[in-house]
Amino acid sequence: MRSRLKDVAEHAGVSIKTVSNVVNGYPHVSPATRARVEQAIAELSYRPNLSARSLRAGRSGVVALAVPDLDNPYFAELATHVISAADQRGWTVLIDQTQGERAKERLVVSGIRSHLIDGLLFSPLALTLRDLTDREDRTPMVLLGERIGSGRAQYDHVGIDNVAAAREATLHLAGLGRRRIAAIGAQRVPSGVTARLRLKGYRQALAECGLAMDPSLIAHAPVWHRTGGAEAMAALLETGAPDAVFCFNDALALGALRALLSRGIRVPEDVMVMGFDDIEDGRFTTPTLSTVSPSKTLIAESAVDLLAARLAGTAAKPREVRIPHRLAPRESSGALIPSVS
Amino acid sequence: MRSRLKDVAEHAGVSIKTVSNVVNGYPHVSPATRARVEQAIAELSYRPNLSARSLRAGRSGVVALAVPDLDNPYFAELATHVISAADQRGWTVLIDQTQGERAKERLVVSGIRSHLIDGLLFSPLALTLRDLTDREDRTPMVLLGERIGSGRAQYDHVGIDNVAAAREATLHLAGLGRRRIAAIGAQRVPSGVTARLRLKGYRQALAECGLAMDPSLIAHAPVWHRTGGAEAMAALLETGAPDAVFCFNDALALGALRALLSRGIRVPEDVMVMGFDDIEDGRFTTPTLSTVSPSKTLIAESAVDLLAARLAGTAAKPREVRIPHRLAPRESSGALIPSVS
Repeated sequence: MRSRLKDVAEHAGVSIKTVSNVVNGYPHVSPATRARVEQAIAELSYRPNLSARSLRAGRSGVVALAVPDLDNPYFAELATHVISAADQRGWTVLIDQTQGERAKERLVVSGIRSHLIDGLLFSPLALTLRDLTDREDRTPMVLLGERIGSGRAQYDHVGIDNVAAAREATLHLAGLGRRRIAAIGAQRVPSGVTARLRLKGYRQALAECGLAMDPSLIAHAPVWHRTGGAEAMAALLETGAPDAVFCFNDALALGALRALLSRGIRVPEDVMVMGFDDIEDGRFTTPTLSTVSPSKTLIAESAVDLLAARLAGTAAKPREVRIPHRLAPRESSGALIPSVS
Repeated sequence: MRSRLKDVAEHAGVSIKTVSNVVNGYPHVSPATRARVEQAIAELSYRPNLSARSLRAGRSGVVALAVPDLDNPYFAELATHVISAADQRGWTVLIDQTQGERAKERLVVSGIRSHLIDGLLFSPLALTLRDLTDREDRTPMVLLGERIGSGRAQYDHVGIDNVAAAREATLHLAGLGRRRIAAIGAQRVPSGVTARLRLKGYRQALAECGLAMDPSLIAHAPVWHRTGGAEAMAALLETGAPDAVFCFNDALALGALRALLSRGIRVPEDVMVMGFDDIEDGRFTTPTLSTVSPSKTLIAESAVDLLAARLAGTAAKPREVRIPHRLAPRESSGALIPSVS
């Protein structure tokens, strides 16, 4: 016998209206109640008539998250947080990987999946202002990462202050007495907006400390993966004689760390290493990785909140949310804070 | 002016039929052609009438991948490969995280999202045979990971030989002269099927080598994350005096590695460390991590192929695909194979 809404309500000890709210993905249900109802649904093998309800509500309960790639632990961790935040609202998350390629990113904003989703959370790399202004699709969208263009914002946006964060990371190394501070992760436009901002912060810090800008200390990395970090570090050791290196993300830094240690170069004694992102890997390497820590939980929650307001029709003008960051000094810059006891 | 199918075909230099095949997600389009058509679609901001085509084809072009969590690098890497394999067929992948909880896993199999998806790739942890036999939903499903139950298979299944792989990993350590080989990652039922198989392989290897089974050398880890590995290693060092440790996944091994190195214990000289999964992190630690490497690409491709055959109606009986694995000896067990040059 098929279970009915009423059976689920009785089993979960809640009202029929509450079960209906859970099934329809309305946000005003506590996580505990939602969990109880979902458990009852599972135990009774209850299957709501979802096609009918989709048509009625005009909502699928699905939002898309588009990121460059989940192979990058930063985006995997961000996706986990987005899925959790969305789950609190009863939403399912569909994940798109764009590889940071403009053609794929344009497909995402063009609404090719808009029949499936209620809204879109999008972390683009190569998208241009033109791509945004050309957009015809009306699916609500929240952008993550860098602001695109400098004019009036067209979309809700969640980001961090990359220039300030990179400046602080570099000042941290300079403050510990390092004078030949290299940077790994520079990129050429158009897809290098984040790289450009972090490079700017790095340059600002050097200027503040009266350190010369030595071009041989700046290494490019077209993609920010461990392999690129290891290769860039190997090249810097040939030409630059650095005593510290600021890597524009943790994956690059983990690659750089490996390149140094495998050559018998001591970290932090000979070369200090600093990353950016605070991915879990860096808390378990030896030495542990000093890094810039943006709050990924806050980024995910803010993005989901902005999208929810957009879907509810309570948001008017596009909003800009700046998420705080902090330095996390660990062993790779000489901080003796054990991260694992 | 809105672009039409014909404009896209002209722009991409292909037939209208080919554009239609891409838009409808049919598999028999080469990746290069698909990319050209998708680029043309993006450049012309063409939007197919997808709701209509979904109704016509009875297909959404979306498949779901349900995994315990993307925070675990193994599942993040697997998801990347699944997304790539699905993309070759023009499918979008929706990702569900179950946290390995039975209630959430039952929700996944109960078809709560079946109005959205054409098929389901599912890597369960806590699901029981009963949950599968009770299933009423008809959405095609392929299971990843352990076989559930020992009877006749009800579903297509892709997995590896965990007993054999764990046995080989343990024999590798014994063959290098280690005699007090610990294991980290044992779990209690019901969610510990993989743990039970890997423990079985570990015990088989010890028995083959005439090594005693010392219970003080077996550490439990309710979840297989780095933190659990570090804690388990710390506990083993108190009580077990191991000279090697086989961790049931790489995350545990990276935690164990950190616990050893932070105490000044040398790896591999004092304690050898072996993991399982071959996640990218382990190729960049110092020492690099010896591990068991299952082919994640093959797992993803086989699962997508099985699902495609199911959707096409060309598959009859449930099929079982066993994916090969190999040992990847690295520095943490004394192999001097530099993985980063």
